[in-house]
Amino acid sequence: MLPDLPEPLPPPRDPEEGQPRLKRLEEVLLRHAREQEVSDRRWIPIPDGIQDLYEQAGRPRPLFRAFRLEEALGTPARLYYKAEFYSPTGSHKVNTALAQAWYAREEGYTRVATETGAGQWGTAVAYASALMGLDAVVYWVRNVYEWKVDRRGFMKTYGADVVASPSERTTVGKGVLKENPDHPGSLGIAVSEGLEEAQREEGTIYCLGSVLNHVLLHQTIIGLETKAQLERAEEVPDVMISCVGGGSNFGGFILPFVPEALKEGGIRFLATQSEAAPNLQGEYRYDYADHAELTPMLKMYTLGHQKDLQPIMGDGLRYHGAAPILSLLRSKGLIDTLAYPADERHVFQRAQSFIATEGFLPAPESAYSVAGAIDEALICKESGEEKVIVFNISGHGLLDIPAYREKLGI
Amino acid sequence: MLPDLPEPLPPPRDPEEGQPRLKRLEEVLLRHAREQEVSDRRWIPIPDGIQDLYEQAGRPRPLFRAFRLEEALGTPARLYYKAEFYSPTGSHKVNTALAQAWYAREEGYTRVATETGAGQWGTAVAYASALMGLDAVVYWVRNVYEWKVDRRGFMKTYGADVVASPSERTTVGKGVLKENPDHPGSLGIAVSEGLEEAQREEGTIYCLGSVLNHVLLHQTIIGLETKAQLERAEEVPDVMISCVGGGSNFGGFILPFVPEALKEGGIRFLATQSEAAPNLQGEYRYDYADHAELTPMLKMYTLGHQKDLQPIMGDGLRYHGAAPILSLLRSKGLIDTLAYPADERHVFQRAQSFIATEGFLPAPESAYSVAGAIDEALICKESGEEKVIVFNISGHGLLDIPAYREKLGI
Repeated sequence: MLPDLPEPLPPPRDPEEGQPRLKRLEEVLLRHAREQEVSDRRWIPIPDGIQDLYEQAGRPRPLFRAFRLEEALGTPARLYYKAEFYSPTGSHKVNTALAQAWYAREEGYTRVATETGAGQWGTAVAYASALMGLDAVVYWVRNVYEWKVDRRGFMKTYGADVVASPSERTTVGKGVLKENPDHPGSLGIAVSEGLEEAQREEGTIYCLGSVLNHVLLHQTIIGLETKAQLERAEEVPDVMISCVGGGSNFGGFILPFVPEALKEGGIRFLATQSEAAPNLQGEYRYDYADHAELTPMLKMYTLGHQKDLQPIMGDGLRYHGAAPILSLLRSKGLIDTLAYPADERHVFQRAQSFIATEGFLPAPESAYSVAGAIDEALICKESGEEKVIVFNISGHGLLDIPAYREKLGI
Repeated sequence: MLPDLPEPLPPPRDPEEGQPRLKRLEEVLLRHAREQEVSDRRWIPIPDGIQDLYEQAGRPRPLFRAFRLEEALGTPARLYYKAEFYSPTGSHKVNTALAQAWYAREEGYTRVATETGAGQWGTAVAYASALMGLDAVVYWVRNVYEWKVDRRGFMKTYGADVVASPSERTTVGKGVLKENPDHPGSLGIAVSEGLEEAQREEGTIYCLGSVLNHVLLHQTIIGLETKAQLERAEEVPDVMISCVGGGSNFGGFILPFVPEALKEGGIRFLATQSEAAPNLQGEYRYDYADHAELTPMLKMYTLGHQKDLQPIMGDGLRYHGAAPILSLLRSKGLIDTLAYPADERHVFQRAQSFIATEGFLPAPESAYSVAGAIDEALICKESGEEKVIVFNISGHGLLDIPAYREKLGI
């Protein structure tokens, strides 16, 4: 993707003042991940072993025309959605979890450490590790860990070691708990704990589920498939829509279309977010990816790495920064953004319209993609424009039905 | 399927004594269903409209070789599983729900009534009705209705009217509640309530999720795909295994293979069940399909239509009778059966071995298929036989994780 960006991507850098607290990135990330992170090759082949895993994980995943939804809305727009929810763990996260677990075994590791917020990423890592015969430890933001007992059970059936974060297992966790024994946790803290564990434990490697270039690279399978599917349908997208937390599903979805978007009258990319964490509306500057300042600084749109973010059902969108690649595209005016009110009622109602017509129950995060697509389709209804709107349903919400029950009062 | 059976199927009949309490079957079933019920055609085409719906519901669904499970078991057997869990609602039930809802609209109905036990069928009907623009009412066995709040929420997001059975809405329900206001319900009672409502309400048609010939017919898409997939893999099955409640997933899975099974040294069919409801080990005789004796009598293996069946997690297997077609095959010695202890520990442990190697979390009912396949593979390990074992995973268990948590203590 890097050679197709409108200008070179600003590299990560160490903080301007004081010592970097983490040994450099190369000491916690996979060798393959580091190479991919900076690769200027336009095509990086997917190893056969990973292709086999993708097949088992339901790839290629369908792209559906939303005929029934279009009819219900009375829009002249043509709507297409990519079905990333046809996934063993329920989301797109397996695309990079499988790749990272495969490379981890290739590189001789026996154990992976990671963090999770909503839990989709932790489940994907637990799944991928089980398939690759690796142990897994998952630091899970405590306030989510506590109520998502079923998702926790899901990770444990894969044999993963699931830990509420902040925990007593790491220096970072102990420090936070000393200040506030009831700390609800945050993604930033969980990242810090996972990094600390990977640094400390022999044979353990850290896996990250979003933000970094190699993660977005693994997710481009979404956009590459979508591109081929649209070509077979003889359609050219006018708008592509998905939700953005750290940016992995959105990045994977749109990046293969960037060369077309750069052309005159090209595709419009729309990122949907929550007003609880509208990171693409923050400042474009260097910031840490984690709470404890263990990571290098990344040039990205950020709300500040220690900002408190209000809890929402679409917890996977609750992150302070957006992927550097997406941030660069945003800074060049290539990505529009729309933040929905934090009470989420509009978003869940839009999701219900989708469920009642198309039959798939989106994850709370994916409900933001659906809302964006429906709102765009209704604008077309007003204007009479026959736009082609393509959106990504990054995951299903079968483990998030309590959120639907609460928000829809059913 | 009927012309391929080893002898003609005994037809349904009215009770020997007294009046039939229900107007005849033709008054509550779809015209297409009635025709399919007795058709002696070897091939009944799938209408294009239903084929489109199947595609959206994830068809064709993959058949996977269980390489990792084989390796973990150290068996010389080759294991293949059909992935019916790649379904919008999570199970094979959508195959017939979509067909029935499509025919219902074709025949001018505006509303469907049905019953559900474990909830997979009710969810499938809610889904299919939403797609076809029909209203749906689901009578749900009360003791399951009460604790499966998320699955209930799932049905309601589709707009279905979900009613705990026995209910005050029907004469049957009122009668049962008068005797016992705390009655936990049963599938037989729920069937009776659904039938009563369909008989009473204008424009309402009854849909059944198992047992009858037309339901098994719609499910043969499972076996037909599996057959084509095995041919492409150049494999001939020695054993085919799945769980049996009423018999719809098992029937759909094996029926296309019956002609081969009838040959010398042909395929062995193995039905896995629970000791709580080992209906294939019951008596082969005429019995009612429901509690209140509203249905005609069917010739089938039965435990008695009013027998109390102990609750189990694999609630979809808790039904007193087996489909007439399967019962005939069983009476001819073509189907073996194996009932697992009602505490279900063995079954859930086998399921966990599958999850930890293959990565998919089976529904509690499907865990019985997995247990059967693993136990068969371990017999091959003893004997050194390189059998080809093909099993069907009829659904995923993402809404049944509390059962895993309880049975595995995680």
